Amino acid sequence: MLTNTFRGRDFIAIADFTREEIDTILDTAFQLKLERARGVQHHLLADKTVFLIFYNRSLRTRNSFECGIMHLGGHANYLDSNSVYTPAAAGAEKAYVTERLEDVSKTLSRFGEAIAIRIYGEAAGWNYGQGNDYVRAFAAAADIPVINMEDDKYHPCQGLADVMTIKEKLGNLEGRKIVMSWAYSPSRKKPVSVPQSMMAACSFYGAQLVFARPEGFELDPEQIAFYRANADRYGGSFEETDDMRAAFEGADVVYPKSWASLRHVAPAVPVADWDEQDKLFDAHKDWICDEAIMKLTNPHSLYMHCLPCDRGFEVTDSVIDGPHSVVFDQAENRLHGQKAVMALTM
Amino acid sequence: MLTNTFRGRDFIAIADFTREEIDTILDTAFQLKLERARGVQHHLLADKTVFLIFYNRSLRTRNSFECGIMHLGGHANYLDSNSVYTPAAAGAEKAYVTERLEDVSKTLSRFGEAIAIRIYGEAAGWNYGQGNDYVRAFAAAADIPVINMEDDKYHPCQGLADVMTIKEKLGNLEGRKIVMSWAYSPSRKKPVSVPQSMMAACSFYGAQLVFARPEGFELDPEQIAFYRANADRYGGSFEETDDMRAAFEGADVVYPKSWASLRHVAPAVPVADWDEQDKLFDAHKDWICDEAIMKLTNPHSLYMHCLPCDRGFEVTDSVIDGPHSVVFDQAENRLHGQKAVMALTM
Amino acid sequence: MLTNTFRGRDFIAIADFTREEIDTILDTAFQLKLERARGVQHHLLADKTVFLIFYNRSLRTRNSFECGIMHLGGHANYLDSNSVYTPAAAGAEKAYVTERLEDVSKTLSRFGEAIAIRIYGEAAGWNYGQGNDYVRAFAAAADIPVINMEDDKYHPCQGLADVMTIKEKLGNLEGRKIVMSWAYSPSRKKPVSVPQSMMAACSFYGAQLVFARPEGFELDPEQIAFYRANADRYGGSFEETDDMRAAFEGADVVYPKSWASLRHVAPAVPVADWDEQDKLFDAHKDWICDEAIMKLTNPHSLYMHCLPCDRGFEVTDSVIDGPHSVVFDQAENRLHGQKAVMALTM
Repeated sequence: MLTNTFRGRDFIAIADFTREEIDTILDTAFQLKLERARGVQHHLLADKTVFLIFYNRSLRTRNSFECGIMHLGGHANYLDSNSVYTPAAAGAEKAYVTERLEDVSKTLSRFGEAIAIRIYGEAAGWNYGQGNDYVRAFAAAADIPVINMEDDKYHPCQGLADVMTIKEKLGNLEGRKIVMSWAYSPSRKKPVSVPQSMMAACSFYGAQLVFARPEGFELDPEQIAFYRANADRYGGSFEETDDMRAAFEGADVVYPKSWASLRHVAPAVPVADWDEQDKLFDAHKDWICDEAIMKLTNPHSLYMHCLPCDRGFEVTDSVIDGPHSVVFDQAENRLHGQKAVMALTM
Repeated sequence: MLTNTFRGRDFIAIADFTREEIDTILDTAFQLKLERARGVQHHLLADKTVFLIFYNRSLRTRNSFECGIMHLGGHANYLDSNSVYTPAAAGAEKAYVTERLEDVSKTLSRFGEAIAIRIYGEAAGWNYGQGNDYVRAFAAAADIPVINMEDDKYHPCQGLADVMTIKEKLGNLEGRKIVMSWAYSPSRKKPVSVPQSMMAACSFYGAQLVFARPEGFELDPEQIAFYRANADRYGGSFEETDDMRAAFEGADVVYPKSWASLRHVAPAVPVADWDEQDKLFDAHKDWICDEAIMKLTNPHSLYMHCLPCDRGFEVTDSVIDGPHSVVFDQAENRLHGQKAVMALTM
Repeated sequence: MLTNTFRGRDFIAIADFTREEIDTILDTAFQLKLERARGVQHHLLADKTVFLIFYNRSLRTRNSFECGIMHLGGHANYLDSNSVYTPAAAGAEKAYVTERLEDVSKTLSRFGEAIAIRIYGEAAGWNYGQGNDYVRAFAAAADIPVINMEDDKYHPCQGLADVMTIKEKLGNLEGRKIVMSWAYSPSRKKPVSVPQSMMAACSFYGAQLVFARPEGFELDPEQIAFYRANADRYGGSFEETDDMRAAFEGADVVYPKSWASLRHVAPAVPVADWDEQDKLFDAHKDWICDEAIMKLTNPHSLYMHCLPCDRGFEVTDSVIDGPHSVVFDQAENRLHGQKAVMALTM
């Protein structure tokens, strides 16, 4: 546990923190969860404001942040990007509609105590990394912590909630076979942030990480290198496969979900090619999590999903509503993990 | 008064509660109103969240809920249905735009302490009862109370405010001639929820209820049966007429407002027929509340309306701005009635 | 200082207040700023609600109000004009979409403790004064204070922040050469409210006010008369020029920004004429604040702007990001000035 390094820091990627720091966040989250259950008031951020800037829809993220900051005695200021002068990078400005993002960041730094941002997909030009660049630019200009509520590379708050849930259910991750798998969806437009952050968080804790996806749905090689390095360092393993069934065999945790292929968006191609994306998706409609494939896993395995899920495509109702599913526990842990991040950094 | 049956319950329809329970809500509302006037802080719901999900516009409902929950020390989380993954029933889902309503309900149950919903009209497919089914489905999935902020059958919070206002002005409802009347409006698209809930609430208190409407603007027969049964049980009466003037004659309370004909929306017809609706409306432009018709009422009669009203159509300025009008007292009582519901159920 | 005249009053224009009252607001603002810096909690408006009604985009105004009211222990209720029944003047109503503004004002008066409004430009029909009429009509109907968050005549909260910033940086305004100047922008649609309110506030404090603008960008003659009268009374001066360089010569403060010509909007012409507006703008692209023109000012002069600014047009990056710039201090003072107004009037 490392406790004296947080105040004033941004929370943008799991990899920006050491395992000792992630330990501290998780311990804090579990403590806050228990305090809330007992009805202990913890106004650790009294009279402080967190600005929530959303370029994309949100149910869990927005509401868990709004509730969490209120539990901490603070004020969540929800901003959809159209009701303000939309923050824009230099060169992308439009008079009296946008405002340079550094100006927005510096202004909000004068009023409140943290800025949380969600930006990916269309809002980040379907140019992999541009959403994260945007969040980093906000952070560089800000005098207050910037929290990543999901960009096109990372969803670190989801990663925290995922590890919390596995720890709660299985006690620890050490030696557990944990499978992040691609799954088919009629929507092609999901970012890679959830699988990348979930595996980053798990890679600290000695798990046997298995990453399953059809050819074409690989992740950022830098991220993969990070998981491998952590597996080496912390005594786990990392394996990649294009065989969903083999991956599920004997798994303790499965996390099948959809994401867009990085091969068919910028910068791999000049502009996102949705026809090619469609072809790739349509060739893999059999990547679904159903009862048959769940039978291959361990009897008490966990079915995980960050939600929203596309029922009937990524997963059947019988699995997500069945005994393996821990999806609402995951959702709840968003709340506690984020409260910990805010309580430590703000 | 019955006080031990509230915690954890939904508030969806007046008819879900006994008269003793409605008494308790009203007594609580008056007590909270007086405390607020004296400046007594009543943080009965400290650190609790109410989610407010709106599929339709709102001025009074939204703002009275937001202010009320704040008075109680809690947090109102306003959600318009587009900024989240729109909750949708099984079969009506659209990948990455909607989310199954049960999943939304279960997720919000992990973050907050109550869910309040408004859904009627287009948002409920103009299929009478579908809005209420949606609210009931949310409630069935939720672990926390669900409060109806107006669906296509009921507006129970309005019903409470209406009875509160009559009690404040007239002392009691017993023996009073209380007239709910249809009125013409250039907008055809108002639900029947207000008249149905206002009469439900009044039917507990021994009033001489008179329901006036042109042929074609009848209400749900099940509701009418409920008013008659209550009239029997609690010593009042219920009468239906198509003669607005006869209804106003000697009235203590008049409540003329517009609503769409149930004859020309589903399920009475396969899809809502707005041409037929227009014809029916246009034949009754004389159903207006003006000074002439108010002269037929008792000298100190009350003119009521839930607002917004269509001035010049449903009512003349001289009436709504005149000495009979209690519309802003009604509006204010929304606040106190809803605070009572939340303080008792959450 | 005059302290006993505030409770219950509207804050619509600087000119509605005496210099003694403006003194009191500024003193209160500085006191609240220092208390906040020291971490002193000042819940002066516990459990009170301010409704924020926006017809136009906002970053600073919205967020400084939301944070400020929270610092004071109250609740800021953000309303965009579409999510409610849009308030409309008599004659401009549309059934079930709008609601008469007096009805909205009276209703909100029953729920909360103040109403703040922003309305200018398209939302006020580009008819100079109509936005202010709207705010005044709201105030006439309300039982609670109405605060102007910028209409088409005034932005008094900006005026307060501007004077605060000059006082903080220069100690006082007496004898200082303070220049409000027009500047070019690719957006033609900015109101005259900022220059009008900034000069109104400065005119109380003995400054040598210089107003620079090309022919065609004059301000409201009534406002000019007010500045002259105050200059007479309080020992300053007021001068008007169409020579930007002459104005900047030896200036202590420069405030170059864009606004639309009153000559080409109603009521000067029947409807706003954007072609003529374009011609006038395009003839004055050289009205830009760059390093060359800043060299004419005093070495420690202040560059001011209310933000958002159009970088590269109104001002170069080197000036707004350079040593003269105090724009983020101005932005921050919005917070403290508005808190003072609310703490005094509510």
